[in-house]
Amino acid sequence: MAIRLDYTNMLGDVVEGGVPVADWESARRDFASVRAKVGALRAKGVLGFLDLPDDRKLAGSVTTFAKAAAGKFDDVVILGIGGSALGPIAIRTALLAPNWNALSTSERGGQPRLHVLDNVDPRTIDALLNRLDLSRSLFVVTSKSGGTAETMAQYLVVRGRLDAKLGGRATEHIVFITDPKSGALRPLSIAERIPALDIPPMVGGRYSVLTPVGTLPAALVGVDVGAMLEGAGDMAKRCESESLERNPAAIFATLQHAADVKRGRHIHVLMPYSDPLRDMADWFVQLWAESLGKHRKDGDAGFGPTPLAALGATDQHSQVQLFMEGPPDKTITFLTVANRKADVQIPSLHHDVKELAYLGNHRLGELLDIEHRATAGALARRGRPNMTLQLDAADAWHLGALFMFLECATIHAAMLYDVDPLNQPGVELGKQFTYAILGRPGSDEARREWDALPKPNPERIV
Amino acid sequence: MAIRLDYTNMLGDVVEGGVPVADWESARRDFASVRAKVGALRAKGVLGFLDLPDDRKLAGSVTTFAKAAAGKFDDVVILGIGGSALGPIAIRTALLAPNWNALSTSERGGQPRLHVLDNVDPRTIDALLNRLDLSRSLFVVTSKSGGTAETMAQYLVVRGRLDAKLGGRATEHIVFITDPKSGALRPLSIAERIPALDIPPMVGGRYSVLTPVGTLPAALVGVDVGAMLEGAGDMAKRCESESLERNPAAIFATLQHAADVKRGRHIHVLMPYSDPLRDMADWFVQLWAESLGKHRKDGDAGFGPTPLAALGATDQHSQVQLFMEGPPDKTITFLTVANRKADVQIPSLHHDVKELAYLGNHRLGELLDIEHRATAGALARRGRPNMTLQLDAADAWHLGALFMFLECATIHAAMLYDVDPLNQPGVELGKQFTYAILGRPGSDEARREWDALPKPNPERIV
Repeated sequence: MAIRLDYTNMLGDVVEGGVPVADWESARRDFASVRAKVGALRAKGVLGFLDLPDDRKLAGSVTTFAKAAAGKFDDVVILGIGGSALGPIAIRTALLAPNWNALSTSERGGQPRLHVLDNVDPRTIDALLNRLDLSRSLFVVTSKSGGTAETMAQYLVVRGRLDAKLGGRATEHIVFITDPKSGALRPLSIAERIPALDIPPMVGGRYSVLTPVGTLPAALVGVDVGAMLEGAGDMAKRCESESLERNPAAIFATLQHAADVKRGRHIHVLMPYSDPLRDMADWFVQLWAESLGKHRKDGDAGFGPTPLAALGATDQHSQVQLFMEGPPDKTITFLTVANRKADVQIPSLHHDVKELAYLGNHRLGELLDIEHRATAGALARRGRPNMTLQLDAADAWHLGALFMFLECATIHAAMLYDVDPLNQPGVELGKQFTYAILGRPGSDEARREWDALPKPNPERIV
Repeated sequence: MAIRLDYTNMLGDVVEGGVPVADWESARRDFASVRAKVGALRAKGVLGFLDLPDDRKLAGSVTTFAKAAAGKFDDVVILGIGGSALGPIAIRTALLAPNWNALSTSERGGQPRLHVLDNVDPRTIDALLNRLDLSRSLFVVTSKSGGTAETMAQYLVVRGRLDAKLGGRATEHIVFITDPKSGALRPLSIAERIPALDIPPMVGGRYSVLTPVGTLPAALVGVDVGAMLEGAGDMAKRCESESLERNPAAIFATLQHAADVKRGRHIHVLMPYSDPLRDMADWFVQLWAESLGKHRKDGDAGFGPTPLAALGATDQHSQVQLFMEGPPDKTITFLTVANRKADVQIPSLHHDVKELAYLGNHRLGELLDIEHRATAGALARRGRPNMTLQLDAADAWHLGALFMFLECATIHAAMLYDVDPLNQPGVELGKQFTYAILGRPGSDEARREWDALPKPNPERIV
């Protein structure tokens, strides 16, 4: 059980456009100061995600709830957006059978379906709610602050339908995941006797996948949450190393940062060569974009790398042309799986057709791995730096480790970029404008700013 | 029935970081030369996609096949990758009911399920094939050249299973979509009497969604292909206008190009505020990346904008922080829908909770639209240029028009960027390396180049 990072192709002595070795050496020398900054942040208590693997009480609350819920529900529906949705989606894709929600109860081993409503499009929500047997459905409402407009709107719609259908028993079909004290959901949970699980105050929303935000959905469909936390704990320890060469998250962060500021490679691609890991890329995009993309001081022009999700081999027929021959502004990190549970033999047929004959007697997983190696090699040959993160298997242990790896990498990167990895001040104005247009009390100032904006110009509408 | 482009927020007199009005004016003056270049390309016959709305013979072949197939199949499986998969996926998400493949036969109105195998991960393929009733399944094998390794590997696996299960009747469960003359699949179709539909030679793979590549999957699940082609035809006419201000595709291309070369805004985000349109963003990414990202001459450093897929309102909790406060290197194009078939009322509950009370008696679709306007306004206020493409409805007519709009925009952009929008030379090396590792005859030279590549350095693996 291990995750390995191979960064051979990231350095300038191997790949023409890579990080200059001198910069890598100087990063090694400066690493103590980076670690000191991480340590200071941890001492402030704001890196609570690092403590989650050891939080047995929190994990116990999940297990207890899941045990009590077992057998009661055919459908589990997550109401959440951003980090509250991307984690459960990544877990579902990685650890459940493909097309889980289309499988029969017996194909699912008796576990419920798992739906994630990550948006407020009425078509999606209406279609799902009309199909569910509400008396056999559980709604997991995830919002740390209880103030997320989209999630609260979803909750109100669901609550209305549950009340109409189930009356006083409606609250037995809801569970909140929220801050233990503050926010709108906690008092509601007390007043209405709706069970609520905690997101510890010192765990930021986008670092919350190993809290009940991710572990409750996982536990409700039978995922081994203990193994997930164990893998995360193992990785957390590795990423505490004070030696850069032994700290995989810090290596990843250091190389991405150096490739950006020294080489202008400010677009950071994450490209799993694995269907189970495909939605990890979107989870990473949120983490990297929201943590690192921001002003460093008032009035600066803006700052931060742009993460990009891709999928191998699929994107060899889409984005790889650009990665290979586009501007030298990207790094590519591949995610691969060493041991597949089962592979599929390609039968040897049509021996006379040269486009088909050479494929016979190889295996699909082998082809996927070869395509990864060929793409990595071709990128290196063309001066495009890349690295590969290899999981021994796509299971709960390794997924937990991968979440932790990317979270630790983000914190280290934030220290190098000199930004606060925990806030997201840029989204506030849009929220205020939304409140103003909806007429939420207290949004008069935003309303004035909104009204002063330029209006659509009919001459510039075609 | 219409699509409108509002580009008010793209210009520098409205948004601080927008395209300078002087550059816009000069683009208008130079537009005749751009149109002349498009005309020259069309005269060469390589822009065959423009003629697809009028190709009744091709559309007829699709209708005939779909009619004959009606009632025979419960599952339609597309084998394809890149353009051959992204189009069918976008069509499925936009035009079929949400979670189509999880619906019962009656919920699907008797239409078959639609699966798209866009990768060679053995887990996905094995899981699907094990679940299907092969005697009620149709496999659509899409490859223009018949040389796509991934699709051919999928085909061989499927063919092996069909032969084993159905013997001589296996070929009744396969249809090829390929070049009418050249390539590996056409002779195979003749030799084995497998039906084959055409991708016209002058339609490039990533411009092929309105050929049977997209229209056959659509027709097989009951989509109104005639309406789709009609919408596309309407848009093709609009995008022939010699007046820039009346040519929506050219406006889009001109503004993206000017924002890039004049303002360094080389990351072009497409952000639908609509679940049905969410997979259009991935389809656009392939089209824009593969058409525009390439060398202009041998040995240059690389060139082209980077497209980025996002989703509203979801990404307000992910990428929008970066769009708002990150580097001023992006434009954002929103995709919205004016008329939703049905909206969902948000009930007025919990009047005493301020985080919930203001949402009551609004509607979910209204919230989604308000969030789009708020985000566009906030981006504009922060000097982030953006535009909005609004569809009257997310139906077959508008989807066809949208495909055509983006294809025409890509051709116009290629003329401005001075690149060939139809080739993808950058992916060749990776293909050759794959052939070399698999031992395909004739790949000795690639094998030598592969063997000469630097090997993984154990000291750089952690």
